[in-house]
Formats: sequence, structure tokens, C-alpha cells
Amino acid sequence: MPTKIGKYTTRLDTSPSLVSFASVVSKKEGEGPLAPYFDMICDDTSFGEQTWEKAESRMQKDAVSKALQKANLSSSNIDYIFAGDLLNQCISSSYGLRDLGVPFFGLYGACSTMAESLSLASLFVEASLCNTAVAVTSSHFCSAERQFRFPLEYGGSRAPTSQWTVTGSGAAVVGKQVSPPYVKHVCVGTIEDMGIKDINNMGAAMAPAAAATLSRFFEDTVTGPDNYDLVLTGDLGQVGSQLLDELLEREGYTLGKKHNDCGLMIYDRETQDVAAGGSGCGCSASVLCSYICQAIQAGRLRDVLFVATGALMSTTSVQQGESIPGIAHLVHLSSTPHKGGK
Amino acid sequence: MPTKIGKYTTRLDTSPSLVSFASVVSKKEGEGPLAPYFDMICDDTSFGEQTWEKAESRMQKDAVSKALQKANLSSSNIDYIFAGDLLNQCISSSYGLRDLGVPFFGLYGACSTMAESLSLASLFVEASLCNTAVAVTSSHFCSAERQFRFPLEYGGSRAPTSQWTVTGSGAAVVGKQVSPPYVKHVCVGTIEDMGIKDINNMGAAMAPAAAATLSRFFEDTVTGPDNYDLVLTGDLGQVGSQLLDELLEREGYTLGKKHNDCGLMIYDRETQDVAAGGSGCGCSASVLCSYICQAIQAGRLRDVLFVATGALMSTTSVQQGESIPGIAHLVHLSSTPHKGGK
Repeated sequence: MPTKIGKYTTRLDTSPSLVSFASVVSKKEGEGPLAPYFDMICDDTSFGEQTWEKAESRMQKDAVSKALQKANLSSSNIDYIFAGDLLNQCISSSYGLRDLGVPFFGLYGACSTMAESLSLASLFVEASLCNTAVAVTSSHFCSAERQFRFPLEYGGSRAPTSQWTVTGSGAAVVGKQVSPPYVKHVCVGTIEDMGIKDINNMGAAMAPAAAATLSRFFEDTVTGPDNYDLVLTGDLGQVGSQLLDELLEREGYTLGKKHNDCGLMIYDRETQDVAAGGSGCGCSASVLCSYICQAIQAGRLRDVLFVATGALMSTTSVQQGESIPGIAHLVHLSSTPHKGGK
Repeated sequence: MPTKIGKYTTRLDTSPSLVSFASVVSKKEGEGPLAPYFDMICDDTSFGEQTWEKAESRMQKDAVSKALQKANLSSSNIDYIFAGDLLNQCISSSYGLRDLGVPFFGLYGACSTMAESLSLASLFVEASLCNTAVAVTSSHFCSAERQFRFPLEYGGSRAPTSQWTVTGSGAAVVGKQVSPPYVKHVCVGTIEDMGIKDINNMGAAMAPAAAATLSRFFEDTVTGPDNYDLVLTGDLGQVGSQLLDELLEREGYTLGKKHNDCGLMIYDRETQDVAAGGSGCGCSASVLCSYICQAIQAGRLRDVLFVATGALMSTTSVQQGESIPGIAHLVHLSSTPHKGGK
């Protein structure tokens, strides 16, 4: 049974498992330091499709198929799928997953989507609302660039605080407790808006949400950064990560070397020209569903707080002078289940 | 405890309550036949805001505030809020609800969003994942028109199969069983795509999804239209409603006079020039959270199947020649709870 601890955190007493997980990325990500850990690296950023949007749909489809295959499951074994992405009306998810025939919950959490979908899938399994659920999301540099910024052909220059949208997808199958990674806690975020308006500095807009969720989780569970091997944010990048450190320091929590960010891990910032790091729903999804989950599975990492953050603006809201609200959801993954739970 | 019946339907044994509900609409809806049932009718379609998008955010905020007020609750009493809308990146929800400080799940289900959010809120309460959750959505004629179709100033002519986006919002507070309406079943939809490409005929694109969800629900529960007072679709309009009748007839179910559609109820089609009827997330939300829930509360309606449908395309997918996938989620609302449950 799920147990609410404090206002924000739920303890998942049965410790559901990530039964399987898979990641799909493209050329640039395949040239980065995490290359050995991805399931599929497609050098063709179009993934054989005619548009970038269809390429992104294809990545979601491939990530889910690969995850199901690794667990020896078919889509008929899945009770629910929780999916979303960055594109207007979330078309990567709806077109990518329309052939599965699985009951579908569409989500919008911007770059927090992997944590949102994984939270919901884990809570559903924990609460016996289903046996097996899939969480998936994606992003594509080219579809995001032309939707949120400029036509690709324009070749606009980039601010040093800007981030590079990851072309990638990650999918996880959540089921009853069988093997690590186990989901031990979920902490659902609130919308935080500190008034940041610089669209080229999304890390700064999202850092307050990550700080809020982490400090609430530490309070609810009476723990701190020292209790975990890794506090893994989604895509705060260099600027947002520094800000998170400062904000949590004020609350009395020192992250120090316990913190890393998927946006800083997926590319080599020295050689890959990605400014402040990677971003996009597919950034945290592909890093989680490859290197991180493999490390938890193998026991190299024991307790990881996965905190994906999203910036909930649109081009319209920015043009209308609005600030950028952020949100962060937390999933505590572990190599060991709760004691006595089941 | 929730009980899965068949592959698609969950029986909510504790029969959670819609503790309160509220609706906010604008001038045109306030001139329609349901006017006496809405909580707030604002003749100014800008709701005092400077843009249509901000007006839509304002409606969501007002609908939630009104629903909380009617239940004598404050936002601190709410465990989770499930919200979404039609705008790119769902900004009506994120901007409208950012000040609440309530853990937030952002959804995208197009015009199925009220059924999606109500399903999740009800399942969370049923499964003891929380005590109280809010479901809310909205749409605005002006923000939708300029995002999906033409600038308002263009004054494009409308096809007879087209529908009129409702300017409205509906919010429901779901809690433990106290009084009607009770939520007795939830049936989550799959994405259905029959190849419809006519963007001026969304009813036809969504009808197959409604038919699929309804026939699965009837099969899972071993019931038929005769067991209910009303089968209420979201916004199929005139064309989609006829198609739904035909599709279900083929499956052996005759809806006949048991069927009505929020898009056909909210306007007087004889006098209000809305072509095939109303549409938009706010259509089913405002009709459900006013006339329908009031009738269940008063016992005038006993068993209602609320089936909101969504068309999951975007302007980009349509321009790329894609067909329009649809989805429909079902919530069974009743004036009496399950016997023996609690």
C-alpha cells in the first residue's frame, strides 16, 4: 500500500520494479560519453522518416518496443501507458504510440515528463491500480528548435546559458517487485515561478522547482543528500545546476559531489558545442533509461533521486511578457526494496 | 480497493464523491439553454485580462476557486491537481494554477481532458493515493481559433461539419464517499485512428474512439445503454453523434434516446450559429460540472456515462498529411454508491 509521508511524498511500500528500460538516441548523443549505454543509436537524425516530428514519434515507438522486448512482454501485457513530449499537442506521443492499443494517459510536463510519467506508472502499480505500466517520453533537436526557436536553416547564434535539445527517447516498464531498480518514493512537484523571463536561461527558471521538491522530500523523509549516492536532476545544465546548489545551501542542504545533471552527462561540453548542456524531455529519459538504471541494476549506484524539471512556458506566453513557471517531480530509485514491504 | 474488470474498466468499490464542482463560461454560453446551471457567466470574453490566453488561465483559476469555496476547502486541503487544456504546452493550466501551491500533474488529452483528469483524480482517491484531488480543464474560442485555425480578424467561413469552441472551464473536487455524484467505474481509452483527415470534421475523427471505449465498457461490465439514464459524450457534435450511433449499432448496442452530447446541449443550434455544435475541453467540462452533476445530485439522473473524446492532432501533423487520432475516456457517475463498498 502507498503511504503518504508529509504533504508531498508517497512511500511505495511494495517497491515496484523497473522491470525493463530502453533508450534510443541519435548521432550527437552517440558521440557523447554515454554512448556505450544506449540501446539504439541512429546516425540518421530523421530515423528514416520524412519529417522531424515523425522521427520523434518513431523514437518513442522504438524505445517502447525495445523495453517490451527486453522484458519479453508484448503491448497486450501492458495495462496503461503514460506518455508526453514537448511538441504542440504532444503529437510525438499520440502518433508514435497509436498502434499499441494500450490504454493511454497523455501528459504534459515539459522536460519533467519522464519523472511525471514514471511517478504515475509507479503509483498505479503500488496502489494495485494495475500490474504493469509504461512510462515514456522523447525530444528531438530539430522538431524542438523549429517549434520553440528558429527555423533550422536560420542558423541563429546561441547564448552561453542556452542548452541543446537532446534527440532521444527513454521508456521504462514498471511492474511488481522483482529486481532492481526499485521505486521507493515519489514526490510530486508544485508549479514554482520566481519571475525568470530569459528564454535562453531555462536552467535558472527550473532550478527553484528542483530546490523546492528536493527540500520537501528531504524534510518529509528526514534525510539529506548524504543518504543518497546521486541526486540526478533532468536538464538544469551548468547554470541551473549552480543555482540549485545555492538554493539548497540556503535551506541547509549541501549537494556537493552528490549532484549531477543529465544535461551535463550526456554531452562532452568541451568538444560538443552544447553551451550550458543538454535539455529536452528526451535528455533525462535517455540518461535514466540507460546509464543510470544499468548502474542501479548492477549495484554500482544504490540510491538515486531522479528529479526531472520542466519549464512550463510556450512561445505565446513568452511573447506576452510572462515569466517562466517551472516544476520538478522526484522519483527515488534504489538497488534494494523497502524492508518488510510487499 | 479498485478492482480491474476486464482489460479496460476499473470498478471503484469505495465510490468516491464529486465533493463539489463548478463551471465558468462566457457570453455565448450564457445565452444558451444551460445558462441557469453555470456558476459564473462573464459577459466579457477577456475576463478582464489582456490576452485570450490569460483569459483562459483566469477561467481555470476561477473554476477551481469556486469549486473549493463550495466545498468549504482551501488549496492546502488538496493533495493533487490534474489539469490540462488545448493550448500549446498547456499554458492555460500552468499559468492559471501556478499560485495554488498544489502538487500538479499536467495532462494532455485534447477535448478528452475532463474525463482523463476526473479518471485520474477518482482512481487516486479510490486507491488511497490521496484524500482529495481536483480535476480541471478549459477552452476559449478566441485562443483556440487563432492557434488552430485563423486569426480572429480573418473571419473565415465555417464548414457545416465544423464545431464552435466553447469558452468555459469546469472543475471538480474528488474525495472520499460522502454524497452524490459518486464515481463507480472508470474506463481508460486507447488511441483510435480510422484515417479521417478532414480537420473540419473532428466529430467523425473522434466517434470511433467513443464507440471503442463504450463497447469495451459495456462488455467489461456486462451492461448496455438500457442500464443507464444517459450516455453523455463530450463534443462529438451532430456529425460525430450520428456516427457513434451507427458504429455502436454494428456492435449490437442501440443508444437511441439514451445518448446526448455536451456539444449539442450547450448551445441552441437553431439560433446560435455554431454549425455542428460546441467543442473544446471546456465544453464537456462546463456541462458536466453544472447541469449534469446538479441533476445527479438531485436524483433527476441516476446513472450517467461521461465519455469525453479528444482529437490528438496538431496543426503540424495535419499539414504533414497525417490522419487524426482520437481517444475517449469514460467515467461512470451515479446517484448511488456501490453496495457494500467503502
